Amino acid sequence: MHRTYSMRQTRAPSQSQLQQPPPPVSSTKTSRLFGKTNFGHAFRKSTAGAFGPDLSKKLAQLVKMEKNVMRSMELVGRERREVARQLSIWGEEGEEDVSDITDKLGVLIYEIGELEDQFVDRYDQYRVTMKSIRNIESSVQPSRDRKQKLTDQIAQLKYKDPTSPKLPILEQELVRSEAESLVAEAQLSNISREKLKSAFTYQFDALREHSEKLAIIANYGKHLLELIDDSPVTPGEVRREYDGYDESKSIIQDCEDALTNWTVEGASVRPRRSVKGR
Amino acid sequence: MHRTYSMRQTRAPSQSQLQQPPPPVSSTKTSRLFGKTNFGHAFRKSTAGAFGPDLSKKLAQLVKMEKNVMRSMELVGRERREVARQLSIWGEEGEEDVSDITDKLGVLIYEIGELEDQFVDRYDQYRVTMKSIRNIESSVQPSRDRKQKLTDQIAQLKYKDPTSPKLPILEQELVRSEAESLVAEAQLSNISREKLKSAFTYQFDALREHSEKLAIIANYGKHLLELIDDSPVTPGEVRREYDGYDESKSIIQDCEDALTNWTVEGASVRPRRSVKGR
Repeated sequence: MHRTYSMRQTRAPSQSQLQQPPPPVSSTKTSRLFGKTNFGHAFRKSTAGAFGPDLSKKLAQLVKMEKNVMRSMELVGRERREVARQLSIWGEEGEEDVSDITDKLGVLIYEIGELEDQFVDRYDQYRVTMKSIRNIESSVQPSRDRKQKLTDQIAQLKYKDPTSPKLPILEQELVRSEAESLVAEAQLSNISREKLKSAFTYQFDALREHSEKLAIIANYGKHLLELIDDSPVTPGEVRREYDGYDESKSIIQDCEDALTNWTVEGASVRPRRSVKGR
Repeated sequence: MHRTYSMRQTRAPSQSQLQQPPPPVSSTKTSRLFGKTNFGHAFRKSTAGAFGPDLSKKLAQLVKMEKNVMRSMELVGRERREVARQLSIWGEEGEEDVSDITDKLGVLIYEIGELEDQFVDRYDQYRVTMKSIRNIESSVQPSRDRKQKLTDQIAQLKYKDPTSPKLPILEQELVRSEAESLVAEAQLSNISREKLKSAFTYQFDALREHSEKLAIIANYGKHLLELIDDSPVTPGEVRREYDGYDESKSIIQDCEDALTNWTVEGASVRPRRSVKGR
């Protein structure tokens, strides 16, 4: 939130930004091969999973698709901030109350854009964690392949030359390979569950915070609207003087406080589970 | 939400969709001159306000920029639904619990995408209302222009030929024009305030509902995650059988109920205003 409470002045970092070190900037925000158009979206979607081991293909595609989602969310945030600025610019020419309120609405909408941008960074934590499952899947594939290859070789040899001295050697190798595979599959099962759980915990925690904060902004936004004097005037009548500057500033301050002080423990939306489950 | 509680089955319309007639589909979703790329975004932004009366230029630009925001939000929603499907497809090959939970997570994320799409339709109500202010602004411009032109003509004539018989005629015309202008300006002031207020009421009401619903989904999503058995197994050990089907289904049912029963009166996020304002 802007300390200065106006879109038309320069901004200082907010308390919350000073206090909480934000997550690293999303990896999707850099290195755009195709610039800022969304040509890359269709390309990524169609090529993802076309290469690489079978086991990880579907997840590789998911990870790429998430990148598209993030790029699009980033765009929404950027365009929202532009809209906020334009709203303030438009309102500046209006009468006093319209000018003040549109400027303050701009502050709130800019803040939505900022939150959307921060959400992208946190969403990336989810994506990167899903990516690590993909990596585990890829690394287990060779062990599956080796086991399959040995099984095939043995079957072929048993048919062609059942007395071959190579046969016992291959069978020993298969036993070793099966042991390795057993470990690999256990690792896959353990790590992918752990990662799946933490990936979606990241996503849902980020979503919960993000959406509660948007709801807070929407509420304060409605308070701001009350300050617009929409009682009709007759032609030539002078509208009564606007005295809402303190009020509108205090609404923005309250909103800023509510956003800064938001914690998971203080979350408002706490839906209940019915008992039919267990 | 899917009545069938799985991404892998066909879907029936939800209760809430049957009960509440949704707003008309957003006008930004149709007639895409430049197809689905975002080439149009940059084009709209730079050309908006380049034509048309001065008075409405800034607002015309705002309205165009909002169209960009909406197109981008629509894209996020669409890509989110694709991600939901892919998540379910990926999970299907996993063990029973992973398969069930990823499918149910897919249901929740698909629902987020649906809500995002519905939000775009409601956001359009805001945009269309802002557009109507732009129309009022455009219509007031000719009356301002006429008044200005008459004032200029009179000044010129008074300097060149102060006794001209045209002068009293022009002065009478100016009086009429001033009266017309007075009415136009009063209309502009009244209507634009009323519309500004209702436009942002639409936006904030839609945002509040949307974000509270996302927070609900995030909460139930976290319940789902608890059903993933992430206790590590040793190689060769068989993971205990998954018995969470009823539980996961009931979480989705509860989530659906919470979303269907959400009302403005029952909103959870209700930030307080400090007293310093008044």
